Amino acid sequence: MVSVPAPATQMAREIAEQPAALAATFEHVLPLRHDITRLAAGRRHVIFVARGSSDNAGVYGRYLTEIHAGRQASLAAPSVATLYGANLDLSNSLVVAVSQSGATQEIVDTAEWAKRNGAAVVGITNDGNSPLASTADVALITQAGKELAVPATKTYTTQLAAITVAVDSLAPKPGTLDAAIARVPDAAAKMLEGSVEAAADLLAGAHDVLASGRGLTFGTTLEVALKLEETCLQPVRGLSYADLKHGPIAVVDADLVTILVAAADGPALPGMTELASIVREKGSKILGIGGDATFAARCDVNLPGPDLPETLSPLALVIPAQRAIEALARKLGLDPDAPRGLRKVTQTD
Amino acid sequence: MVSVPAPATQMAREIAEQPAALAATFEHVLPLRHDITRLAAGRRHVIFVARGSSDNAGVYGRYLTEIHAGRQASLAAPSVATLYGANLDLSNSLVVAVSQSGATQEIVDTAEWAKRNGAAVVGITNDGNSPLASTADVALITQAGKELAVPATKTYTTQLAAITVAVDSLAPKPGTLDAAIARVPDAAAKMLEGSVEAAADLLAGAHDVLASGRGLTFGTTLEVALKLEETCLQPVRGLSYADLKHGPIAVVDADLVTILVAAADGPALPGMTELASIVREKGSKILGIGGDATFAARCDVNLPGPDLPETLSPLALVIPAQRAIEALARKLGLDPDAPRGLRKVTQTD
Repeated sequence: MVSVPAPATQMAREIAEQPAALAATFEHVLPLRHDITRLAAGRRHVIFVARGSSDNAGVYGRYLTEIHAGRQASLAAPSVATLYGANLDLSNSLVVAVSQSGATQEIVDTAEWAKRNGAAVVGITNDGNSPLASTADVALITQAGKELAVPATKTYTTQLAAITVAVDSLAPKPGTLDAAIARVPDAAAKMLEGSVEAAADLLAGAHDVLASGRGLTFGTTLEVALKLEETCLQPVRGLSYADLKHGPIAVVDADLVTILVAAADGPALPGMTELASIVREKGSKILGIGGDATFAARCDVNLPGPDLPETLSPLALVIPAQRAIEALARKLGLDPDAPRGLRKVTQTD
Repeated sequence: MVSVPAPATQMAREIAEQPAALAATFEHVLPLRHDITRLAAGRRHVIFVARGSSDNAGVYGRYLTEIHAGRQASLAAPSVATLYGANLDLSNSLVVAVSQSGATQEIVDTAEWAKRNGAAVVGITNDGNSPLASTADVALITQAGKELAVPATKTYTTQLAAITVAVDSLAPKPGTLDAAIARVPDAAAKMLEGSVEAAADLLAGAHDVLASGRGLTFGTTLEVALKLEETCLQPVRGLSYADLKHGPIAVVDADLVTILVAAADGPALPGMTELASIVREKGSKILGIGGDATFAARCDVNLPGPDLPETLSPLALVIPAQRAIEALARKLGLDPDAPRGLRKVTQTD
């Protein structure tokens, strides 16, 4: 763990708590792996149910489930349950419902609907006394402690930790990620070092911002875009590598800052490195999050990512971006702890 | 059918061809319904595979499958196949692969990967001689004729028509949509009437544009956002009703034009009408697409939608938006037929 000066905002303090929160969460949820393996027996499909930052955690879970566990995965459209009341046979599905508060009515309602339709439910929440924790067949309680700043930081990364354990429980041979999991808290602590000023300056001068990533880091990309938008009140789009190349690449020009998110290794990195060259040729400035040295060299500013394999990189890769966004909010004269128009427990219907 | 003056651009001509293209597509694919019912027997899960406008058609298909056919549905993440080469057991899945050209390598590769993993494949393409048509167990060939303008219009709505027929084939009792299907071409023709100048003017003055819709019209929302972005080189985000309310509502202000997309009836309409009031209070101008009279009264400009039930509304609802976008491109001095940086057959890897 690294010694850093006491941060000025609640958001900054909560960002700095992530290494300890990740360690505590792994300690708490790893012993529940066998319960999940048992619960999921014979269930071939995994459905993530979430909104907002938790939904971005679900995007990571969806890729990890298919790539690491070899089970088909998807994201629920909650309105199918809450608005249309559809009857689906979910008897071969495991639902993973993710909600920081465990009290967002839409998520609780969708989890209960899924159970009535035959699904088994894993709940991931930061409140062990929440409705979601009660509804779930197995509850994984993240150990983030109370999160007071409105933008989710430590509850998001601890959700990723719980998802990692849940998904590994579904793998043909659970436990293969354990050595890398043990390295996550230290890798996260390293992400609290280094200056993020150049990144915040680059974003402060942007007319428009677009974020792109691929595969296992696509959820991180969406989370960076959402966090930037919520905290700095700046519209930001998060697009997958392929969706960006398929059309919106037409709007990439010198007015835009492009954020590219990549792990230090893995099959997505070469494409992200090539995308950096394409975006550069169009005149856009690039803020790189993570990647390797070749990738970093093509970025105007690069925030180094963690020394973790691609499968676990998202658990720490978002941290330098959180720090840059917190610094940017202060630079813009905004209060990162309480952005305009947002409440901590969101209720969607 | 309505008599309209000969349009000046290829895009406008192709927009106007949609009523006939929809009628021809239904005539061609309706007789294949039994083949799909047979192919899908015992397969409880439907996976849509697509990119770009075809992916927006897939979003409609995903909701329709769960709401109308009562089978669980999702959108594939093609990189899981093409980049990570994951092994998934898809023996209880029906894959619906959608590609205008039928030649986008990523989509063809993902469809072939799905077959190797046990899936049955329905292909939806505008080219009966394409690789996708060959790969598919059942090919539904849209009858849009050659599409020359780069922005997809008639290939998109005819994809929706083919998806409607494919999904209805999976319903417990196929055929219940037939009476409404028979009304689609005339309802689409009505969408070619009326002025779109006020809508184009409103968009021309926008600093930023955000689009929102819900449930069955969410795919339309994404398509309107993508079309506006591709054709007018203006960054536009498409967000679901709930995702907008969950966070990005914080950036809605007087600098923004908000496009709200709604069907004339159905359970999503009251929420969209309420959203119009919320967005209005924040000072944003509203361009409404569709809805009923109450919804229209809360919009600054409203483009009336088709007289079709919510399940089929998307097949014609996008048409007035296509027309407004074509008019906006000309107003901005852009060529709607060939936007900068885009090719007709996109290749993503």
